[in-house]
Amino acid sequence: MSSNHQVRLATRPSGLPTRANWQFTEEAVPEPKDGEILVKVRYISLDPAMRGWMNEGKSYIRPVAIGEIMRAGGAGRVVVSKNPKFQAGDLVAGAFGVQEYAISDGKGVQKVDTRFVPLPSYLGVLGVPGMTAYFGLLDIGKPKAGNTVVVSGAAGAVGSAVGQIAKIKGCRAVGIAGGADKCRMLTADFGFDATIDYKGEDVKAGLKRLCPDGIDIYFDNVGGDILDAALARLAMHARIVICGAISQYNATAPVKGPSNYLSLLVNRASMTGMVVFDYADRYGDAAGEMAGWIAQGKLKGKEDVVAGGIDAFPEGLLRLFRGENMGKLVLEVAAE
Amino acid sequence: MSSNHQVRLATRPSGLPTRANWQFTEEAVPEPKDGEILVKVRYISLDPAMRGWMNEGKSYIRPVAIGEIMRAGGAGRVVVSKNPKFQAGDLVAGAFGVQEYAISDGKGVQKVDTRFVPLPSYLGVLGVPGMTAYFGLLDIGKPKAGNTVVVSGAAGAVGSAVGQIAKIKGCRAVGIAGGADKCRMLTADFGFDATIDYKGEDVKAGLKRLCPDGIDIYFDNVGGDILDAALARLAMHARIVICGAISQYNATAPVKGPSNYLSLLVNRASMTGMVVFDYADRYGDAAGEMAGWIAQGKLKGKEDVVAGGIDAFPEGLLRLFRGENMGKLVLEVAAE
Repeated sequence: MSSNHQVRLATRPSGLPTRANWQFTEEAVPEPKDGEILVKVRYISLDPAMRGWMNEGKSYIRPVAIGEIMRAGGAGRVVVSKNPKFQAGDLVAGAFGVQEYAISDGKGVQKVDTRFVPLPSYLGVLGVPGMTAYFGLLDIGKPKAGNTVVVSGAAGAVGSAVGQIAKIKGCRAVGIAGGADKCRMLTADFGFDATIDYKGEDVKAGLKRLCPDGIDIYFDNVGGDILDAALARLAMHARIVICGAISQYNATAPVKGPSNYLSLLVNRASMTGMVVFDYADRYGDAAGEMAGWIAQGKLKGKEDVVAGGIDAFPEGLLRLFRGENMGKLVLEVAAE
Repeated sequence: MSSNHQVRLATRPSGLPTRANWQFTEEAVPEPKDGEILVKVRYISLDPAMRGWMNEGKSYIRPVAIGEIMRAGGAGRVVVSKNPKFQAGDLVAGAFGVQEYAISDGKGVQKVDTRFVPLPSYLGVLGVPGMTAYFGLLDIGKPKAGNTVVVSGAAGAVGSAVGQIAKIKGCRAVGIAGGADKCRMLTADFGFDATIDYKGEDVKAGLKRLCPDGIDIYFDNVGGDILDAALARLAMHARIVICGAISQYNATAPVKGPSNYLSLLVNRASMTGMVVFDYADRYGDAAGEMAGWIAQGKLKGKEDVVAGGIDAFPEGLLRLFRGENMGKLVLEVAAE
């Protein structure tokens, strides 16, 4: 416990981030002050949203500053506590950044229980991605039993939870993902009713085949042509949840707007953006309900763990943008 | 009253409709059967939506068939009634088509009162455009006092009503229109707080100047670059009402999707399509409330009357797409 390694934002990327955009630093492990805890990070969450945080300019959250430790969710163990709410040994999840040890005042840090679910699940199905799926689908999508719910990026952390929660609510779940393995996982492991492999099939044709009565809810994680294909297939009064647009995050050309947006008019449909942090005061209730679904076997997480510690962060992140992850992508920082 | 002249759809246009897309026919004035009325049409409504009705394919309403009399709203006088709800001499508004005389079973035909407002107003502020403004702004936009409401196509029939109803609801109304004359009309006649002349000023710059705290409601009649400029300027939880997209109706290239749609995510905003016909069972209440506003001097209509009878229909319609109309564009079919 002599040194702490960190990954900081060195320069802002244009297109896909490269190793040159990152700075690797080593510092002494800091001492917590009164009210603080020192956390040894075991897992770091790798999320599509990270790409947006690297850009300058106004967004839903301030950009990571040049020289700042890269923002990231993480899970680990409290090693020193000077905060009465935590004890050394507690397992916790929070926004610890891309580093091996983090100081926190405990705000937004959650104690977690690994008796029933593994620690990385608190970065996935019981973490921010799970909350995103829960609030995006239920609050914005407003599913009714019998609805056809289509989700893109379905093999990712958010998408796989969206499909499962849709099933719990009595909907038909159709997932769009890249590759036969991912599609198999969606039906075999996550209970999706049907899938479209966008690498092997025209998405528009797939939606026509699988959604003969149209799409009631489209949960979009990818943007681009797939959003356009979904717009072309909306049912009356459909709801589109705009959660992300991974196809556009590394684009150096202007973002491709959805040409078929007038389908919103034809079908009296809506397209609404959501940011999970707005629901922070309801995370506890949501996590409770989702833990219940997990206990009943209705909801599963799946983590895709990248080994290699802090140093593997830049390459690990790129796996997301290459669509290589099966389930929630996390970086293992320390074995214990 | 010997002959009836009609304009029928001859061929489907690509781009702007030309005279060759229309067929001019002459028939004997028909005799109403039991339950029917014969209406002598005085004014025909010229609407951007007509361009969409000329296209093949699924939309919010079935296309006008080749050879069919062009669909149009109209206002006129009952000349023969075999329907107990109407008497010869009644002034009425309804979907009479582009023709001089229309037979109707009375369904959807409304008796109108011209003691306080002129007959063409029943095609404008008290007709379908007024209803569109009323339900689009109030039901979809959900204005709150103090909100900044921006409307494009503001000098048109829908836009001018949107701005006035926004003012009635205690909002700030900003209109986007083409040309200094239109902009002057918006502030001087319709009480808009501010205007952007898109022919004389960059809309993005204008919105930045006039909406320093962002746009709470954007009511879109035009689509294209102006929609994109509005998206770039949304306030948190903004509502976009998609009512039309006149900039795209005659495009032969694919519709330009809004590149800035991810502003919906950043600002937790929504974009919702509306079709006024869905509110038909509430037209009566809306018209009553709007007539009250007219009586109080809070709401005005303005009609831009094209003379020339049925034969002037094709050229009259093009005035809309050239943005030449000031207020509601109507075609005068007969002097009385």
